[in-house]
Order: sequence, then structure tokens, then C-alpha cells
Amino acid sequence: MKKAILASTSTLHGQDYLEYLIPHLNNLYGEQKEILFIPYARPGGISHDEYTAKAKEAFKKANLSIKGIHEFENPIEAVEKAEGIFTGGGNTFLLVSELYRNGIVEILQQVIAGGTPYMGTSAGTNIGGLTMGTTNDMPIVLPKSFKTLGLVPFNINPHYLDPDVNSTHKGETRETRIKEFHHFNSQPVVGLREGSWLALDKNEIILRGELSARIFKTNQEPYEVETGTILTALN
Amino acid sequence: MKKAILASTSTLHGQDYLEYLIPHLNNLYGEQKEILFIPYARPGGISHDEYTAKAKEAFKKANLSIKGIHEFENPIEAVEKAEGIFTGGGNTFLLVSELYRNGIVEILQQVIAGGTPYMGTSAGTNIGGLTMGTTNDMPIVLPKSFKTLGLVPFNINPHYLDPDVNSTHKGETRETRIKEFHHFNSQPVVGLREGSWLALDKNEIILRGELSARIFKTNQEPYEVETGTILTALN
Repeated sequence: MKKAILASTSTLHGQDYLEYLIPHLNNLYGEQKEILFIPYARPGGISHDEYTAKAKEAFKKANLSIKGIHEFENPIEAVEKAEGIFTGGGNTFLLVSELYRNGIVEILQQVIAGGTPYMGTSAGTNIGGLTMGTTNDMPIVLPKSFKTLGLVPFNINPHYLDPDVNSTHKGETRETRIKEFHHFNSQPVVGLREGSWLALDKNEIILRGELSARIFKTNQEPYEVETGTILTALN
Repeated sequence: MKKAILASTSTLHGQDYLEYLIPHLNNLYGEQKEILFIPYARPGGISHDEYTAKAKEAFKKANLSIKGIHEFENPIEAVEKAEGIFTGGGNTFLLVSELYRNGIVEILQQVIAGGTPYMGTSAGTNIGGLTMGTTNDMPIVLPKSFKTLGLVPFNINPHYLDPDVNSTHKGETRETRIKEFHHFNSQPVVGLREGSWLALDKNEIILRGELSARIFKTNQEPYEVETGTILTALN
């Protein structure tokens, strides 16, 4: 029975890192636990230590401690024994490369399926989908595979951004990119706006936060689902 | 001696497809030639035939004909015999996958080095760089390698977009993404704004168009170069 929060972003405009998620951490992880932090995505290229320190400071506000996976000798064992797991955002290609390089993709799937609580933000949420094929990140390194954890039966596009109707920029919109994805991939994509998250609990997947999410399916017009919608059967 | 136009975008706001590039096509390709079109990037998922028809219509304005590489039985032979080559935009992951799948990466490098004129727009420009590691596209398919044609000794970021200072969106800016790229890759990156192109001629690489370009190097503040700047030694 999976227990997870898959959040579009770590930080809302004008707020501190993870601020809007802190009230939900004890419900997810319980009280006074040590959470395993996966800093592999290294936003802006910061070090594993720097990133872990940042997560530590935020989690302290919920009386939870943090230890970086890079501080353990054996990352597989670290995942096996974790009381809870948090994967931070950054570059998804780098994150997925490192997950495979450290051999922890399968063990992550196993422990989360077995009930170890998981939270991801941004890239950490992307890997909750079937593949990382709907990331917004640059391919700065080539991972062995684009397959990810599949905690939900669809793909996720974090930081989903509505097309700017006033823009004169001719780069592809997010919607165009997802449409291209669907010419080669059949799973639905959930465009998760900032401040939204998917809550996995009691075998349900529910959209949380204040905003609606945008659902993309092959050969179908995209549509909106309101917060509170159950997305368990979306596949 | 390479002869090429590597353009940030195919289309400027309010203009027709390739409109601003048409006045330069005869200088690049010569008169009344048949140009080989590589439609593999399939923007928005359109078919090879549809995409080729679109390129054909635009090239007619410069009295040049177009034939899609998919219309040839042997794509390698098609590249070898081409009087000129044009690669259109779309999804870079798909384009690079197809270049490798059809075995034409090396032959493209050879004929362009030998003087066959080349034009790329967007994804077709991305592949002119050393790798596709600075594309903006979604990883909808996994290519065999991120290595690309290396017509220039650096990477290119097409559709370069300055950070929107008024934005409250917390997704990474283009500059942040390129900074992450530089933690794992050493080559410079040229952020090519829409309407700009790199002109390769007489062993020089020159920035053309009305706007400046933004240059990113490892461990250095990004800086602007004006149109007309020679970028041959940027590596």
C-alpha cells in the first residue's frame, strides 16, 4: 500500500523551500523519523551535501531528520532500511542516471510498494510516473533508460505551464510537446500545476492543492480535473 | 569547407514558415537545385509527407525543389548524392533517434565537411552542435547517443529565451538549465534568439540576424555577443 506525495514544485512564489508541504509531512512520514534524502538531481549543480543541508533545514520544522543517501556506504541498504524517502528536484536526466548507476530503481519500487512513505518534488515527482518522458529538463547526461518508478499508472509533467496567449515566442508550448510525446507513447500525462500534488494513500491517487490539473490522453482533447479528483483509474 | 545556416527558429512571429530565411537560400544552396529534406523531427507529430509538403511550398519561393529523405529507398545514398540538405525542427530526441536508426550521422558529417550546403532550423540546428544536450525538447524517445553532427565546436540552445523577470513560475529558467549542463559538460553553449542564425562559410562561423546571442561557458558569467561576431574560435 503506497503512501506518497508527488508535488509539482518544491517552492511556491514568495515562500520558503517546501513551506507549503511542511504541514503534510507528519501525516505522510509520522513523527520524529529519519528520512532518507536523494539529492541526485542537484538543482543548479549544487553538491549533494549542500542540497541535503537545505532539505534538513526544511524538514526540521516538522521534527523530522534527514540523511543524504550519499552519506551511506551502501545505497541499496539505505533504501531498504529507510523510514521514509524524499527525492528533491533538479535535473531529471541526472537523477535517473544516478538511480540506475547506484542500482536503486528496483529497490525503491519494492520498498514504496511495501509501504515506505515517499515524497518527490519536481524531478522527484517526475520519476513517480511510468517514464521520465515528460520532463521539462535538459538532457545534460544520458541515462541508461527513461523508465522510472511507476508509482502511478501514467506520466507526470511537473511545473505544468499554460500556454501564454500573449507570447510571440515560437518555441513549442508545453501542450505541443506533450502532443508529440503521445505520438510515440500511449500513457496519459498529468500536467501538474505549481502548488498541486498527487496524494497516494489507501490505494487511491488524489489530486491535492488549490488548482485543477490538465489531463492529456492520446487522440483526445486535453481536459481539466478539479482538486480532489480521484485519478487511480487513469491509465 | 562547410557551408551552412543554423537558425534558431523556422518561423518568426507574424510571418510565414521560413519567410525570413528565404532571401538567403540561393546564396546557400545555389539556383534551381533539388534539396534533400530531413523531416524526422515531426513537429506536433505531423507525418513525413505533410512536413515535406510544407518545406516544399516554402522552398519554391526560392526556385528550389525539395524531396523528403523518406522518399528514397536508401537514406545513406540520398545524403551522399544530395545537392543540399535541410533539416526541419520538431522534437530533437526523435530526430536524433532517427538519424542513428537510419545510419546517416557519419555520412551527414562527411558530406557537409565536403561542401554540401546544409540548413537547420530549431531541432535541425541543435544537431549542428557537438551534442543535443542543450535542446528544450521532451525526451519522447531514447536515442542511442546524444552526440550530434558537431558542425560547430560548441553546443547550441535554439529558441533562447531570456528569463522573465516578472514570472512567479518556479520551473527552472533556461539559464539555470544551461548552468546544470555545464556541471557535466565542458563545451560552450550559444543561446540563439529567435531570428538569429549562425552562418558557416569560408571556414568562419558568424552570428547573423538582428539580435545578440548569449554565450555560456563553464565557471564564467554568461555574456552577450553582437550580430556579426565571428564565433569560429569559440570552444
